[in-house]
Amino acid sequence: MNEAYVHGRHARESERLKDQAGALVDLLHGDTSYPAGSVVLEAGCGVGAQTVTLAQRSPKARFVSVDISADSLAQARRATQGAGVTNVQFGQVDIFALPFAPESFDHVFVCFVLEHLSRPAEALAGLERLLRPGGTITAIEGDHESALFYPDSAEAHQAIQCLVELQRRAGGNALIGRQLYPLMVKAGLESVRVSPRMVYVDSSRPDLVDGVTRKTFTAMIEGIREAAIRAGLTDPEAFDAGIRGLHKASEADGVFCYTFFKAVGAKRRARA
Amino acid sequence: MNEAYVHGRHARESERLKDQAGALVDLLHGDTSYPAGSVVLEAGCGVGAQTVTLAQRSPKARFVSVDISADSLAQARRATQGAGVTNVQFGQVDIFALPFAPESFDHVFVCFVLEHLSRPAEALAGLERLLRPGGTITAIEGDHESALFYPDSAEAHQAIQCLVELQRRAGGNALIGRQLYPLMVKAGLESVRVSPRMVYVDSSRPDLVDGVTRKTFTAMIEGIREAAIRAGLTDPEAFDAGIRGLHKASEADGVFCYTFFKAVGAKRRARA
Repeated sequence: MNEAYVHGRHARESERLKDQAGALVDLLHGDTSYPAGSVVLEAGCGVGAQTVTLAQRSPKARFVSVDISADSLAQARRATQGAGVTNVQFGQVDIFALPFAPESFDHVFVCFVLEHLSRPAEALAGLERLLRPGGTITAIEGDHESALFYPDSAEAHQAIQCLVELQRRAGGNALIGRQLYPLMVKAGLESVRVSPRMVYVDSSRPDLVDGVTRKTFTAMIEGIREAAIRAGLTDPEAFDAGIRGLHKASEADGVFCYTFFKAVGAKRRARA
Repeated sequence: MNEAYVHGRHARESERLKDQAGALVDLLHGDTSYPAGSVVLEAGCGVGAQTVTLAQRSPKARFVSVDISADSLAQARRATQGAGVTNVQFGQVDIFALPFAPESFDHVFVCFVLEHLSRPAEALAGLERLLRPGGTITAIEGDHESALFYPDSAEAHQAIQCLVELQRRAGGNALIGRQLYPLMVKAGLESVRVSPRMVYVDSSRPDLVDGVTRKTFTAMIEGIREAAIRAGLTDPEAFDAGIRGLHKASEADGVFCYTFFKAVGAKRRARA
């Protein structure tokens, strides 16, 4: 992944990614498990936010989790060790230069990675080559314009657009979730099925207000404040008004929704 | 409902509502059924788009389906007769002047109605008074800003905003779906639970492309063309560009999503 990583890699960001993983695990991963003996490539494992869940849900599969960042891999390794997970092997590789033989994996899992790539279709096509015929790719991505909140706030939408624009300038696409179907089809995958996973939060679920609205989404937008101001996309007053708008969605009569998209497609089997 | 009804009541509109009902029935109503012997008020039944489904799914409950429009009621009556449904009784009433005794219903069902009212919280409070303690109100509404599509189109969003604005000028709120939780709580209901129902459509489901993307959502926006131009919200070129944008979501690599919100809350039981 020769791409700037917009979200940053500092300690607070790692905490945010862990909160996110905790609150959203069932929603995103509840229906993913791999059979005993499968060899699964996790492409772009980052700090391991998904790795522990993946490995624990398929204890008899073997995972090869790769990332381009040595720092992230070190954290991911600590996370799996801390959780007592032993079926993961890590490697530092570039998703556009994968050092694996064709058809060497039973399945591929790629989550919150394509959004950071300038050539996501090419990345998927490269992953597809690594699959055995009939193997699957599972891809999960968010879409920042799916964020819907009450009370609505034009300033909050503008603050979100700052992240969308920063990610675009870094070569990525924060709106890629909705696009998974055509991307998977373009990569040659068959039987592609996409399912949206909306996280809906109101004050009847204080755990989600805290874990998702406040500590995941609002914190993610707050995290780009300096970068957005430096890039001339906003000014402190406007941006802070947007953050205040987002925080209103965490109040007693507030509502917040965000949609992730999960796609599963299979590698074509050879014709007889 | 002393409110202008933005969507119109002509024949093509009735067809649209029937297509919508067909494609979305399971998504919206699959988890609604009432016990034998319950008396259920359907407030704002319109042309009966939901009435047949409701009545068929709870054949031993008795429905009182009311609307302010005699024309709509006539169509609803024909729809239930055509379907052989016999557990529905119709009445022409104003949702703000309901001629029923307090606590005379076991449950209330209200679908695609609150969006047209200038005082939705007051309407819900009035419905709550008609419930026996422990009875439930089920409310279902869409939210037009939940529409997400690929390829994205600024012109399409502007065309959608024309409908949002027309509905606002008529006293309604096309973005009410996200607001159901605070509205239900404000009406005094307890144990309010809201669940989002996203309809996700890509070309792997040609039936939904046709029934939802094309014949429901795009047709609904097309249907306000003259009114939006007349109101000075757009011009023919801009509006038609928006419609072309929406139609792209129906093509082979297109994607369309829309979210409905379903809320269920219960009337407080008397304290001992």
